Amino acid sequence: MTSQAIGYMDSGVGGLTVVKEALRQLPYESVCFIGDQARLPYGPRPAEQVREFSEQLGQFLTAKNIKMFVIACNTATSAALEYLQKTLPIPVIGVISPGSRAAIKATKNHRIGVIATEGTIKSNAYEKAILSKDLQNKVFSLACPKFVPIVESNEYKTKIAKQIVDESMAYFKGTDIDTLILGCTHYPLLKPFIQEAVGPDVKLIDSGAETVSSVSLLLDYFNLANESSHKELPDRYFSTGSADRFKLIAGNWLEMDDLNVTHVPVESLSLK
Amino acid sequence: MTSQAIGYMDSGVGGLTVVKEALRQLPYESVCFIGDQARLPYGPRPAEQVREFSEQLGQFLTAKNIKMFVIACNTATSAALEYLQKTLPIPVIGVISPGSRAAIKATKNHRIGVIATEGTIKSNAYEKAILSKDLQNKVFSLACPKFVPIVESNEYKTKIAKQIVDESMAYFKGTDIDTLILGCTHYPLLKPFIQEAVGPDVKLIDSGAETVSSVSLLLDYFNLANESSHKELPDRYFSTGSADRFKLIAGNWLEMDDLNVTHVPVESLSLK
Repeated sequence: MTSQAIGYMDSGVGGLTVVKEALRQLPYESVCFIGDQARLPYGPRPAEQVREFSEQLGQFLTAKNIKMFVIACNTATSAALEYLQKTLPIPVIGVISPGSRAAIKATKNHRIGVIATEGTIKSNAYEKAILSKDLQNKVFSLACPKFVPIVESNEYKTKIAKQIVDESMAYFKGTDIDTLILGCTHYPLLKPFIQEAVGPDVKLIDSGAETVSSVSLLLDYFNLANESSHKELPDRYFSTGSADRFKLIAGNWLEMDDLNVTHVPVESLSLK
Repeated sequence: MTSQAIGYMDSGVGGLTVVKEALRQLPYESVCFIGDQARLPYGPRPAEQVREFSEQLGQFLTAKNIKMFVIACNTATSAALEYLQKTLPIPVIGVISPGSRAAIKATKNHRIGVIATEGTIKSNAYEKAILSKDLQNKVFSLACPKFVPIVESNEYKTKIAKQIVDESMAYFKGTDIDTLILGCTHYPLLKPFIQEAVGPDVKLIDSGAETVSSVSLLLDYFNLANESSHKELPDRYFSTGSADRFKLIAGNWLEMDDLNVTHVPVESLSLK
């Protein structure tokens, strides 16, 4: 049973920043990923709709016999985590709590920045999570709606990307933050530009990578880790968008040229 | 219900390195700690006996109405974690898995050192935990039986302590480790000497501090976090040894001079 794959969902390729860290920290755990490119971006959508899409993707992967479901998308975590924890028959974890906990652990001056999509910022999920643990913290939140499109269009290493990042990060001047949460799983692809813009003294928290630590803990806690020293199942990737396009960006990011990618038509996703 | 304290046990004051991090990361969570100074050190004792002592301490704190039990002692974790997870009615977590996971996350060259008590090293618990996740890792383990006594005798800042640390750490010369797990919750008090001995390029993993991240995750996961923004209950400390002596070392380490410490006679600890 424990050789089953771990399921990951995202609106697009951002969730692969979580998968990349999982491949590194948990090399014997099989990956079953779905990206909802056909309906991307999730950021500007109403929470109700994001919850419905997330549930569809959760049910799709559950039907593939996963043992744990990771909402590798901040917007979907803020909209659907509690609901999916109640409705799916397996452990479900999101990316917001791990990112918040890591920031609380890292900050020395209690001044924490958060960058995320409009949906995540509007939900106030990071600020709530951080302040619930310690009201001493001060949280500076910024929506960066241009970041996801620039990553999904594979332009995240371009001059335009740098310019967009610089313009957005100007918001943090004078805030004296010592910690900045990348509160969207797409953002680590822009990490070099972000670090350059905020300076080397600000610790960047990759909420996705932190989530893998939580996945690893829950595998141990619930005795769900794969006990053999190799994957029992091949990694599989699904996309509601173009499989070729997914293969290109994902292969590039994961440094793999033989990804097993299957297109899933949105129309085939329905709720049970 | 969620305002209940979190329980922590150790053979002595070492577990306070976990508590110190908990006070920092989880300031609204009350602490209920017991140190078993009367029967310290645990390191050289048979696993069976350590398990029995740990169960006594677990039952003692459970009777104080704690909501979670943290085995803040590596020797006791290796001897009793699985058993107490089955027998206590609340979530139980140990320090070995969090330390192992943090080391796997940190290492770049897959060469990881572990220092711990004889009992922990003999149990092979760290090596097993690390290799089960990735056989690429190479683990170099060393028992340091002199470290706990030097901490418990409050001599951990002395020249003798430095000498003992230097002699032990010589073992790692030529191993090329880039990560070293402090696999005993007493060892962080010797951290400055240890870091000096192994050099600045070796990342020290404080298994106790890492455990607090796991405590925080499970509080979130099981909806057990205190929801108010202050402690509902005062922190309490118990010791089977001298309360005054405990107050001295613990107060010094936690930088608090008003610790609420109560002596608990070993004879009063019995198993239900």
